[in-house]
Amino acid sequence: MYDIIIIGGGPAGINAGIYAARYRLKTLLITENFGGQIVWKSVDIENYLGFGKISSPDLIKKFREHLKNFEVEIMEGDSVIGVSKGEAGFLVKTKSGKDFEGKTAIVASGASPRHLNVAGEKEFIGRGVSYCATCDAAMFKNKSVAVIGGGNAGFEAALALSKWADKIYILEFAPTMPADEANKSMAAETGKIELIAGVALKEIKGAQFVSSINYEDRVSKEIKSLNVEGVFIEIGHQPANVFVKDLVEFNEKSEIKVDDNFMSKTPGFFAAGDVNNTKYKQIIVAASEGAQAALSAYEYLRTYGK
Amino acid sequence: MYDIIIIGGGPAGINAGIYAARYRLKTLLITENFGGQIVWKSVDIENYLGFGKISSPDLIKKFREHLKNFEVEIMEGDSVIGVSKGEAGFLVKTKSGKDFEGKTAIVASGASPRHLNVAGEKEFIGRGVSYCATCDAAMFKNKSVAVIGGGNAGFEAALALSKWADKIYILEFAPTMPADEANKSMAAETGKIELIAGVALKEIKGAQFVSSINYEDRVSKEIKSLNVEGVFIEIGHQPANVFVKDLVEFNEKSEIKVDDNFMSKTPGFFAAGDVNNTKYKQIIVAASEGAQAALSAYEYLRTYGK
Repeated sequence: MYDIIIIGGGPAGINAGIYAARYRLKTLLITENFGGQIVWKSVDIENYLGFGKISSPDLIKKFREHLKNFEVEIMEGDSVIGVSKGEAGFLVKTKSGKDFEGKTAIVASGASPRHLNVAGEKEFIGRGVSYCATCDAAMFKNKSVAVIGGGNAGFEAALALSKWADKIYILEFAPTMPADEANKSMAAETGKIELIAGVALKEIKGAQFVSSINYEDRVSKEIKSLNVEGVFIEIGHQPANVFVKDLVEFNEKSEIKVDDNFMSKTPGFFAAGDVNNTKYKQIIVAASEGAQAALSAYEYLRTYGK
Repeated sequence: MYDIIIIGGGPAGINAGIYAARYRLKTLLITENFGGQIVWKSVDIENYLGFGKISSPDLIKKFREHLKNFEVEIMEGDSVIGVSKGEAGFLVKTKSGKDFEGKTAIVASGASPRHLNVAGEKEFIGRGVSYCATCDAAMFKNKSVAVIGGGNAGFEAALALSKWADKIYILEFAPTMPADEANKSMAAETGKIELIAGVALKEIKGAQFVSSINYEDRVSKEIKSLNVEGVFIEIGHQPANVFVKDLVEFNEKSEIKVDDNFMSKTPGFFAAGDVNNTKYKQIIVAASEGAQAALSAYEYLRTYGK
């Protein structure tokens, strides 16, 4: 029986582990791998306070090293497929068939990329269609690619791609690009990124591999075509939390609703980071929520004498 | 006219500056000095994710260096004495007589230590009574000192003092010490720290300097005495926010009430870090709130077309 079981190894889960261990709680952290969404980005991270500019693998390494200073049992390479309420706490089932029990639990399982569901998208996954610029950018050396989504995630993907590709188009549904000015300036500085706003992607085409896309101008309704060999889809994320559906309430974005203590509707069951319904999805915010969820779990255990 | 005026140079203020500048907002940061409450602690900081173990001056240096990467106007060595609502935004007055105007403002002015108000306390400030172990610990080499308050702040002060003093008593009003187990273990390891719970400090005595204290056992009502040359008072903090009283609502701890966007009751006027009413006072939480307040201010400006 653990005091806390933490599900997820991104900034929220790692920091929850650190804070839980500082309070000498018997803690288990279960994660498929460390880093969460950070590992999907190859661009330098410039907004995690204290590091100035750091590559995402280096930042995750720092986080993991920090966690190692504390007594937290770690189960890496496994993932949670279900959580239910038992008599004394929460029963956590993993993919590999293991069962664990915790008096409290913190879900910090993050989110995964959303699909567009246009013609050709599913067909060309791994053959030009990607949801991970970090993983796949190097495959597009000297090529033309399109990024779908003009938010910060889209611009960050485009910046990552600009190290390899010759030409990057960013296509955005809204009439203007929602990304922040810093990202827009950096994109302009590359001289390789072209912005196309107010359009809807209609089809991804090709033979063996992607060779072009069709998109519609949302005002003129004209269909246009671009020759690209890669399509990176950056239109937001789906929280990875279906396995806790019986214990929590979701908002319209499928995010877990939490109170000021990061507790879900089930007492003793917490959610921190991108998986919950707080507004801004930032590394520092996820880390802060992991800390606060662990402190809340500690208070919950103390209050109920567990 | 600035887009954002940030009041305070601790983790919340610094990170608000970084986030505001990333969105290319015209930003002014006003602070007496950098670091906030971090500079009052000499113990190593072990719970700011990514740094493992770092001294407080080193952490603040990292934060300041990070801020220097961005375009933020900085007014150091001055402090804000009043904020009022003007026609187009907020009018900020400083001690040195300067006036600034911002379309939005973020108060991140932290908190300052609470006084006990017992006999001798005021009289012996600077002659044995201190609210800052970092500043004054070295003056108590080979001496005996008392720390009043058995929370984390008290234990952290005692740990800082243990590098210099021979003997440290921690006196706590509650029947048990509220500090976390990690701090309790570290205190035990020093072999120099004695815990006295369930007592009330009654008097600080001395001639030129402090020489002893009297305290009452809250159960037996017995008055006991300890020979100490220093008394460190660590019983919490008073938010530094009187200068914004006309714009905000306070809770019972004099903390500024904020909504989920860290906005006070006055539209466009935000509060981040220890100065507001969020529960856990941690460096990572303050930094996260600074980021979120800046993002909220950016959205506020965009929404109202300012």
